[in-house]
Amino acid sequence: MSYINCARCISCGQEIEALPQLTLCPHCGGLLDVVYDYPRISARFNRGVLANRVRRDMWRYAELLPVEQAPAGGLAVGDTPLYDMPRLAEEIGIAKLYIKDEGLNPTASMKDRASAMAVVKALEGGYDVIACSSTGNAASSLAGNAAAAGLKTYIFVPERAPQGKLTQLLLYGARVFAVRGDYQQTFRLSAEAIEQYGWYNRNAAINPYLLEGKKTVALEIAEQLQWQVPDYVAVAVGDGCTIAGVYKGFADLLAVGIIDRIPRLLAVQAEGCCPINTAYREQRPLEAQPENTLADSIAVGWPRNPDKALAAIRDSRGLTIEVSDEQILAAMRLLGRSCGIFGEPAGVAALAGLVKARQQQLIPADATVVHIVTGNGLKDIANGIKAVGQPHYVEPKLKAVQDILDSIDT
Amino acid sequence: MSYINCARCISCGQEIEALPQLTLCPHCGGLLDVVYDYPRISARFNRGVLANRVRRDMWRYAELLPVEQAPAGGLAVGDTPLYDMPRLAEEIGIAKLYIKDEGLNPTASMKDRASAMAVVKALEGGYDVIACSSTGNAASSLAGNAAAAGLKTYIFVPERAPQGKLTQLLLYGARVFAVRGDYQQTFRLSAEAIEQYGWYNRNAAINPYLLEGKKTVALEIAEQLQWQVPDYVAVAVGDGCTIAGVYKGFADLLAVGIIDRIPRLLAVQAEGCCPINTAYREQRPLEAQPENTLADSIAVGWPRNPDKALAAIRDSRGLTIEVSDEQILAAMRLLGRSCGIFGEPAGVAALAGLVKARQQQLIPADATVVHIVTGNGLKDIANGIKAVGQPHYVEPKLKAVQDILDSIDT
Repeated sequence: MSYINCARCISCGQEIEALPQLTLCPHCGGLLDVVYDYPRISARFNRGVLANRVRRDMWRYAELLPVEQAPAGGLAVGDTPLYDMPRLAEEIGIAKLYIKDEGLNPTASMKDRASAMAVVKALEGGYDVIACSSTGNAASSLAGNAAAAGLKTYIFVPERAPQGKLTQLLLYGARVFAVRGDYQQTFRLSAEAIEQYGWYNRNAAINPYLLEGKKTVALEIAEQLQWQVPDYVAVAVGDGCTIAGVYKGFADLLAVGIIDRIPRLLAVQAEGCCPINTAYREQRPLEAQPENTLADSIAVGWPRNPDKALAAIRDSRGLTIEVSDEQILAAMRLLGRSCGIFGEPAGVAALAGLVKARQQQLIPADATVVHIVTGNGLKDIANGIKAVGQPHYVEPKLKAVQDILDSIDT
Repeated sequence: MSYINCARCISCGQEIEALPQLTLCPHCGGLLDVVYDYPRISARFNRGVLANRVRRDMWRYAELLPVEQAPAGGLAVGDTPLYDMPRLAEEIGIAKLYIKDEGLNPTASMKDRASAMAVVKALEGGYDVIACSSTGNAASSLAGNAAAAGLKTYIFVPERAPQGKLTQLLLYGARVFAVRGDYQQTFRLSAEAIEQYGWYNRNAAINPYLLEGKKTVALEIAEQLQWQVPDYVAVAVGDGCTIAGVYKGFADLLAVGIIDRIPRLLAVQAEGCCPINTAYREQRPLEAQPENTLADSIAVGWPRNPDKALAAIRDSRGLTIEVSDEQILAAMRLLGRSCGIFGEPAGVAALAGLVKARQQQLIPADATVVHIVTGNGLKDIANGIKAVGQPHYVEPKLKAVQDILDSIDT
């Protein structure tokens, strides 16, 4: 059984029925939020119930999700490791640091949580096609999760999309339209086609169920920490859906009485593209910004989910910080050599922000922090190459190895 | 406590002490095998013990591993999903097909199981450096797992190593020697340096502990199937360590009385490089072969673990089959579109072999089969590109989308 009351517009407050396909508010065009019956949930969902539950993927938390019951089949989304990393914590100068490696999701990013939800809602609504426009993790996760469920996907990408990302889409059997135009034209064409053909719409922020999938990362973090809520969660911010999802996960747990507070969120954006952080700090409406960062997954100059993101920062008594591309590349190296985790640039931006926040004493040294690595670096080898140096070229002689060892170990 | 009796040479039968660093038999140069005290294990290790065990990574099976106890820390190796894939099973014409996605290990291949073991044994032996020569999954998994444990790694690669693979190594902080020479020269230099500097040796087949790590994939498969052993396990064969590990995992479970039989192993090699299958079928000593396949992880013309691999095929009443590169690329597409799993070429070669085995009626239609996807396709985008077609290029007009839909849906 589902515990949803309705969907409510966060702008005008109107409530509408939570049908499988929701987009923006039909009254004012605002973002919708899925509203649960928390008292009813808390009557039958608690720490003990979870402790005895066998299912471990994201559907483990079915009572807090917009589904009748945990779906059968599908990819094993969620249940990613949360690592206690004492050496990295010490290097950064923080009491306790946990790394949540979302790059180990089935298609290698946290977007799987949203896409798996989209697939379930599409099936529930009787759709057999899901569509979106994107060249990034949203598209590949949709293509992968839909393939596993036997649904067709139509993906719209600008024709400049890199071959590597196209490859993952095509490999999963997605029908890919490479649009001869820019991203705006691509998005518009996808919207027209979705409208025309009645496909299920997985265009991120406007479908409120996607955030419900994303919030499961917070549910997992809390449970993996045995419900000891961390002081801070550091998360990179692009269109705002991820940080809003993280907030909602903790807020849900608070609402049903499983945890006693919400961690402060550290909202990290790139210096070259930080419209949400700017709007938050300057307390003024969002303004579009250029997209000057190599961290493509958070290069969103005109975020589509600013309201929920801004509320998440505010309501968690959060912090905002921006990092340079150089700091992002340094964070990739730091995470790799100290933890053995290869994150994509956007995936480690929050670590770069954490390092900077410590340097600026914005976060106290005795804090417990969780950093969410949102995507796998294998998806973006080109930027990985920028992060690393060169190998030591040697002749096939032991003397050459000795010379290098002498030079690097001094 | 450890349940190891000794290490025994599979050629001359001599037994030696199971020190943390083992390579080849000091008496005859043969391969060593780790020998357990099965009666003592079976007295305290059974299905019920496992059912109550919280730990889920590969160290869950500590009693069957060469360790005193499950190590703390390290990456979350193992615990990869085993998917029941009825649509793919039907398409192939088989009663039941499970896919074990080893590409979801921390560095994206099954090699993590071996490298995690190498790291633990190196720590146990008091080493602070581990070394190997490889450009592939062995090297990157070693670099990643060692980084997480705070160990240094020295990796020897031929200078032609592709930048993408170098990037993963360097990102994990490995010291990489790019040797101006071919692979033979690279391997020889690594052996000299390991000898000279006393580093821990993670050169695959010659260190018998690595296979003990790899065998955990079989332990997991058996437990995930609630100890209902499948009829066949399809696995790609390169140097022979993986199939030998799979065999030993099932043999261990049989020896301690947890399962009642060993599945038949389907040993799949590339048509362009199949020395183990050739030796098995023709019942003659191994002969080197050229390495003519795009599936680089199994392009091993002179396998270093043929004896254990041949025994695994024989003792499981296994089958051998070879597949072309075209069949491998077709299997990549098949797995992607039907299951949402992106495997590297070597990772899906066994699926290609299974398809062919069914076409040739080598495997009955009522069989239950497990296919192990040994590595993630994101590691090898270049071959992914070969597998897929092109997107549909369209002008940014709905009419263009309609035209494509008309053409593909008919």
